[in-house]
Amino acid sequence: MKNFDINEDPHRRFNPLINEWVLVSPHRAKRPWQGQNETISTEELPKYDPTCYLCPGNVRANGMNNPQYENSFVFENDFAAMKQDEIIFEDDIKHTFFKAKPEQGISRVVCFSPRHDLTLPEMEIADIENIIRTWQKEYTDLGNIKYINHVQIFENKGSVMGCSNPHPHGQIWAQSSLPTQVEKTQNSLKSYFDKNDKTLLEDYVKAELKAGERIVIENDHFVALVPFWAIWPYETMIVSKRAVNKITNFTVEESTAFAKILKQLTTKYDNLFNTSFPYSSGIHQSPTDGLLHPEWHFHMHFYPPLLRSATVKKFMVGYEMLGESQRDITPEKSAEILRQLSDVHYKSLVK
Amino acid sequence: MKNFDINEDPHRRFNPLINEWVLVSPHRAKRPWQGQNETISTEELPKYDPTCYLCPGNVRANGMNNPQYENSFVFENDFAAMKQDEIIFEDDIKHTFFKAKPEQGISRVVCFSPRHDLTLPEMEIADIENIIRTWQKEYTDLGNIKYINHVQIFENKGSVMGCSNPHPHGQIWAQSSLPTQVEKTQNSLKSYFDKNDKTLLEDYVKAELKAGERIVIENDHFVALVPFWAIWPYETMIVSKRAVNKITNFTVEESTAFAKILKQLTTKYDNLFNTSFPYSSGIHQSPTDGLLHPEWHFHMHFYPPLLRSATVKKFMVGYEMLGESQRDITPEKSAEILRQLSDVHYKSLVK
Ligand SMILES: O=P(O)(O)O[C@H]1O[C@H](CO)[C@@H](O)[C@H](O)[C@H]1O
Ligand SMILES: O=P(O)(O)O[C@H]1O[C@H](CO)[C@@H](O)[C@H](O)[C@H]1O
Repeated sequence: MKNFDINEDPHRRFNPLINEWVLVSPHRAKRPWQGQNETISTEELPKYDPTCYLCPGNVRANGMNNPQYENSFVFENDFAAMKQDEIIFEDDIKHTFFKAKPEQGISRVVCFSPRHDLTLPEMEIADIENIIRTWQKEYTDLGNIKYINHVQIFENKGSVMGCSNPHPHGQIWAQSSLPTQVEKTQNSLKSYFDKNDKTLLEDYVKAELKAGERIVIENDHFVALVPFWAIWPYETMIVSKRAVNKITNFTVEESTAFAKILKQLTTKYDNLFNTSFPYSSGIHQSPTDGLLHPEWHFHMHFYPPLLRSATVKKFMVGYEMLGESQRDITPEKSAEILRQLSDVHYKSLVK
Repeated sequence: MKNFDINEDPHRRFNPLINEWVLVSPHRAKRPWQGQNETISTEELPKYDPTCYLCPGNVRANGMNNPQYENSFVFENDFAAMKQDEIIFEDDIKHTFFKAKPEQGISRVVCFSPRHDLTLPEMEIADIENIIRTWQKEYTDLGNIKYINHVQIFENKGSVMGCSNPHPHGQIWAQSSLPTQVEKTQNSLKSYFDKNDKTLLEDYVKAELKAGERIVIENDHFVALVPFWAIWPYETMIVSKRAVNKITNFTVEESTAFAKILKQLTTKYDNLFNTSFPYSSGIHQSPTDGLLHPEWHFHMHFYPPLLRSATVKKFMVGYEMLGESQRDITPEKSAEILRQLSDVHYKSLVK
């Protein structure tokens, strides 16, 4: 019998955003790895690639030409998961087991830069501010469409995250329903707000700043931290200090501070294994259903798969799929490692 | 405006086992793929590999020798995610954001066969019956330990599923808490049982047998089907026809019928892309907390990652992680493809 030591003993942690637990096994990072290694491209990319369908001036799959864009460039996804067609649906037979309903939506691709070879950490702050303006415009335009109630902004980065083109770009899927993960989050945020008249994340950020140990970066308006309940080894979340519920409510200072923390965080990520660090990231914010949503609080999740090196990822498989998410290193340890990494991109030191 | 056609139009389906939706995009399978390809080993494996730590007689990482086992062989995982130590824990400070509790558990590895080169579909029915007996014994032994309230039996197959050794084996993680996914399932099963005095899956299987279109295999005691709400392209579920709540309550006939459907299903999987088909699979059944659990109904999930070929998988990334699981081919189409595949393993035809 020994006393519980959260830094050493296997334990479960609770995620109040989605009401789920995660299994934490601090001691398990030591096990040897003989499994699959990822291939990470170390190839130097050209500034312009004539075969890339995202570079300025090139032709896309549908035969259209990209403009000679100079900042960011947005177009409709040629292979969208949803369609804009209005569908007639009579929900008269409410079947217990075969419950389905049509979904209307729009998918767009957002090129972050005309440069084929630049990712977020290598861009200037002004360029990232420009991406943020593009996200604001898309959130507004898509959100204003009558049947669009949710706008999901996200990025898949790296081939290990299913990204097929290194040209820096993200996506936006806007749709009529709240997606499952967003609905779960909203339920938690709402019940906290109803009880406390403050947003859950406002209080959480305060508690984290006080604790200190999971903070990666802090500036005047944003905090980047490894959540207490993170599931991916180097998972982080960027949260606004102010309880602002959507990206279009940022002040000018907040936009700049958000651009800065995005650059810093992704620089640290690249510096972790001296590689272009793969991840999926995405913004969670107020739905666009016309309601006020004071419970919502802007945040951006980063889910990176790598665990030990540029080529060894964490596999979320058997136990994780059937049972519960499981991690092999404590969030406190991950935060410490990220915190201590330089803000200067490793590539800029080599050049 | 057109009428809803579930085979063509984007829609969402509801999973009553975990109360979550999935986005289905039937038209999207047509998009071209330029992304990452998996490496699938086509190497002929030897019957015995002197460097394999699971083969009979060989030495494991901890220095212990495997016995010259003849059927299946079970040992404690040398790098377990949980430990058996009892931990003293005073839950006096119930913190809203930093909620954690120690978890006690045992991890075991189950070698399915002394043969290094055989997977489930290539084994004899009698050998698979032997694996089922091993699962029954482990479920009983582990379940009888006072602090063990749940026994998760699962298999990660293939390097793409994080499996580092092709020697046929599965795992068992037994622990004091109900893992998140199991708890969600139990809540759904319980509320259905309380209302209907029958298990949810008993009624679901009847509805599926009547509908017919998602059935892959049916025998006297089990059904293998693609759930209406499946998220992975070729996801399936084996469900017992009788409302039996745990593997130890199988009759002798049921054990044989389960062995047969396991062999048939995994044979069809291998025949789909003429490859040793990767997946994570696992059994969901009654917890071992000493209660009766009439709401539980034995079922086994198969989550295979492949989408288009032996090397192109479905990436569950950005939108799926931030928003909602999404699939590119209807469950009905997948079931039809699997149903029409031969029950005779492709390798046995070549030889
Ligand atoms: O225990 P193994 O096979 O070494 O590890 C594998 O399965 C585990 C249980 O699903 C996962 O936690 C690991 O990420 C995976 O690599
Ligand atoms: O839209 P893309 O980049 O072709 O596709 C990628 O992102 C999507 C959204 O997360 C996923 O559904 C796909 O599985 C993935 O390959």
